[in-house]
Parts: sequence; structure tokens; C-alpha cells
Amino acid sequence: MSLLVIGTLAYDDIETAYDSRKGVLGGSATYFAIAASHYTDPHLVGVVGTDFAKEDIAAMQKSGVNTTGVEIVEGKTFRWGGRYEKDWNTRHTTFTELNVLETFEPKVPEASRDSKFVFLANAAPAVQLHALEQVTKPEFVMADTMNLWIDIAKDDLLNLLKHIDAIVLNDEEARMLTGEANLITAANRVLEMGPKYVILKKGEHGAFLIGPDVHFSLPAYPVTNVVDPTGAGDSFAGGFMGHIAATGNASSQTMRQAMVHGTVTASFCVEDFGIQPLANRTADELAARHKELMSIVTV
Amino acid sequence: MSLLVIGTLAYDDIETAYDSRKGVLGGSATYFAIAASHYTDPHLVGVVGTDFAKEDIAAMQKSGVNTTGVEIVEGKTFRWGGRYEKDWNTRHTTFTELNVLETFEPKVPEASRDSKFVFLANAAPAVQLHALEQVTKPEFVMADTMNLWIDIAKDDLLNLLKHIDAIVLNDEEARMLTGEANLITAANRVLEMGPKYVILKKGEHGAFLIGPDVHFSLPAYPVTNVVDPTGAGDSFAGGFMGHIAATGNASSQTMRQAMVHGTVTASFCVEDFGIQPLANRTADELAARHKELMSIVTV
Repeated sequence: MSLLVIGTLAYDDIETAYDSRKGVLGGSATYFAIAASHYTDPHLVGVVGTDFAKEDIAAMQKSGVNTTGVEIVEGKTFRWGGRYEKDWNTRHTTFTELNVLETFEPKVPEASRDSKFVFLANAAPAVQLHALEQVTKPEFVMADTMNLWIDIAKDDLLNLLKHIDAIVLNDEEARMLTGEANLITAANRVLEMGPKYVILKKGEHGAFLIGPDVHFSLPAYPVTNVVDPTGAGDSFAGGFMGHIAATGNASSQTMRQAMVHGTVTASFCVEDFGIQPLANRTADELAARHKELMSIVTV
Repeated sequence: MSLLVIGTLAYDDIETAYDSRKGVLGGSATYFAIAASHYTDPHLVGVVGTDFAKEDIAAMQKSGVNTTGVEIVEGKTFRWGGRYEKDWNTRHTTFTELNVLETFEPKVPEASRDSKFVFLANAAPAVQLHALEQVTKPEFVMADTMNLWIDIAKDDLLNLLKHIDAIVLNDEEARMLTGEANLITAANRVLEMGPKYVILKKGEHGAFLIGPDVHFSLPAYPVTNVVDPTGAGDSFAGGFMGHIAATGNASSQTMRQAMVHGTVTASFCVEDFGIQPLANRTADELAARHKELMSIVTV
């Protein structure tokens, strides 16, 4: 049932139209692992600098994240700055300091190499593939990507797509990767590129899952107090993969239910800055929102 | 179980990025009635000019629409022109010729005044209210509106909202009416204005229903070959109200199911110009798409 995530840990500077924060613990793997920790004990592989706060490692461990694979190297932790427009749909990257990420080659610890479920969080596709190659016998591998890699490393990405079971894309990325405006058509085009399943995220409009044996669509949980959308996509993936790992299979029926869990974890993520709004949730709080979402979607 | 719709009949000139048609039979009440006719025999109240083709009246009657309330007056039928941007989300009105609509005062025929279910298709809110006042004892009244009336007749619209059970709005109209960017918040604000239920349509992203005893969200049916979106909203309303009239009640459970039927009828509407793609569907074709949509949304 083991779940492995390979991705970034970061300190983020975030500006919204209403508020801002500097040096918030973030990163794709961090958000994913915190979300997944509500369902299983995920193993995290990533790199940080010597400036990374011991308290932040401790906080992840307290949530049940196995941080053995977090490498600490001389230098500064990856830093990223983002600014959101008032409508939340447009995000500008204000700066990127790769720092220790620049030379990062993920090393999956011996104890995590037999993981059955793997999430390759957003990174250069060649790095994602290199990480995946260290896992001996993965049963279900999902990857994330971003427009940057579609732009500058498309061949690597197309190669990666042949080695994974599922890819998670947002609407903009799906259109960019396929040149198709219609999202259903775009998702079907992505399937032709290799992965068995595509999850297409549409922000406040929810997400859908397409594969040979499934087409499932789910609205977003109706959050009315968005504070910071950073990490929502990774929190969705964390809840999704967390449920799959806890269930022990990636059947289409499990994936439908996993979409609901991912939507629930993402909904908590956006209600404040950083990982706290998600890390601090109890099982009862998740269950209540799960029940509410089920009521919203049941005909 | 009788269903009454009051609205426009029109001839439309439509341009899309891929094709165009002139003089297509259209109008809000036409699309609504054709959609509803798959569930019940709707009564249509509206006005046309002496140029209105007898074949078009006959086509509606053949679909089961009661056209007794269609008044023919000296002059030309209402004409409207629209042009869609490539992404379908932006529509420009290229011209509006009110013609016989200019002096139209809807007269509900004696035989339709006891209708239990009423749809006030898009029109000046004062005209909608005037029409409603002729119905003796309506059980469930839903109205549509448009940004024009929010702009130039907001007081009349706010007055109308106190006399109806449900209003159907698209995302842009809901934001314009309330000044709220978040659609859930906007829908809740509209509820405070009087109607018991709000249906908020989000085009390709589906629609949701909010009321005191229900919050239900449904994705759109995944149409991949959109040809002309004109009439989709009215077709949705027609399927929705048609199912409610056929069921004989507007309970929240019936409304959830009605949302599915509305989504199915709208999905056929957009696959070609005019009413044909919807009028020509068999019960089996509707049932097949209904089944498919249920599979897409069932967890």
C-alpha cells in the first residue's frame, strides 16, 4: 500500500489581491504529502538547503509523512514567488530561485523503492523519469507537469507519458499540449500519447477523469472563502493518490471515489496560506466535507 | 401537469467561426417548447409576424407543442443576429429587429391559464410579470433573464424575483446582478432577493442548483462537436421544466433529476443549427444520453 511522492519542497512568497505572506512552507511534494497523510503514510523524496527549518520537517513528520528521502544539501532551499489576480484564475510567477534544486537528482531511499503507488510531482520530465526508474515494481504511477515543460521539454514529456499510468493536467496545460480547445477532445488526445488515464483539472469548475473504462466528472467543493490557491492541485493529487494507496488498488471505481477525496483535500488547502489549513484538519472534518460533496453530486 | 412557456419566436442569423446560417427558426420559447415536448405537451405563448412560415408552426405542433397562444400579427417576426467567437464563450449580437415584439403584450389563452408549471423565457421583466398575472394558480414558476434587463430594468427584475419560485442565470448575469465574483456567493445573494431556487449555468462547465433544501451540481454532457450554442440555455430550461411538469411536482429530488434532463436536452441542441437536432431526437436517444451522463456523475 506504500505511497511515494517525488517533488519539490519550497519557501514561497505569495501575494493575493487581499493579503500576502513571505517564506511560507510550500512545494509540490509538501502539499501532496500533507494531503495524502490523511489517508496513508506517504514517503517523500526531495531536496532542501541547510536553511530549511527543522520545525518544518518536524511538522511533516507529525502529520505522518516519512521524510527519510528528504536530502539536505549545502545551500538554500528552492524559493518561489507568485501573485494572483483578483479572479484567482490568473497567476504570475514573480520570481524563481532554484538554489539547491539546480543540481538535484532525486535518490529514492532503499526502503521506498518497493512503493506500489507513485506520484511524480511537477519537475523536469527527465528528472521525473529518472526518479521513476529507481522504483522497482510500481503498480500505479501518476505524474503532474506544467506549461514550462510542454514548452521547453516536450520530447522528454512525451517520453515520460509512455511510462506512467496517469497524468494530471489543468485546462490550460491540456490545451497547450494537444492544441485542442475542447477539453474532452484534448483529454482524449492525451490518452493517445500513452497514459491510461487523464485527470483534467478545471479549478473552481472541478475536474474530470477519462480512461478506457471510465469517464467521471466532479464539480469542485463550493469554497466561498478562497485565501490562497497555491498547492490546490497537489493537494488534490495527494487526496486522490492517498485514497488509492489506502484502498490498495487503482480500479476505475476506486478512482471515482479518489476524485472525491482529492476534491475534499484541495478544498481545505485553499482556505489559508501554506499547509496549515490542510494539516490541521481532523478525520471528522474531512468526513463532513466528503458527505456534503456527495450530497451535492448525488442525483 | 400542464406546462406553459411565454417568450419569443424568432428568425436568427447565426455566424460561428466555422459556419453560418440565415433565417433559422429560433427564439427562447421555441427552443424551450421543443425541449419540453420530449416530456410533456407544453403550451406556448408568443407573437409572430405574417411572414412566419406555416411549416414552422406545423413543425412545433408535430413535436407536441400547443401553439394556440401564438399570436400572428401584421408585420415581421422578431429577428436576431449573433456571432460566436472561436472559443464559444463570447457571443456578439450583430443586430436586433424587434418588429412585432415591439408592441407585444402576451395574452395567455383561457385554456392555458390554469397551468401549474410556468416558464417565463427571457423578456422585459415587466412583460414577464404581466404574463404571469394571467395564470390563475401556478404551482412552480421559473424565469430567465439577461444582462440587458439587469442593466436597464433592474427594479422591474427585482420586483419579478419576488413573484417567482426559481430563476435561471448564467455566470455573467449572476455576477452582474449581485456584484459577487464567487458564483456560490452570488447564487446565495440572489436567493435573498426573493426566489426560492437559483439555477446557475456555467456553459461547458455545467450548472448548479441552490435552494433552502438543496445544493446540487452537475457537469455538462461532454459534447465534442459544438456547431451552434444558440438556444442551449432555453433547451436546458425546457428539459428541466418538462421533467418537472411530467412528474407533477417540484420537490428538490425532482429538481435534481430535472437538472439531468435539462443537461441532456441542451446537449442535443448545440450539435447543429436551429431546433432540428433537438426536435428530431427519439426517446431512446434521450435515454441513452441520460444513462451516459448518469454514469459520468455517479461516484
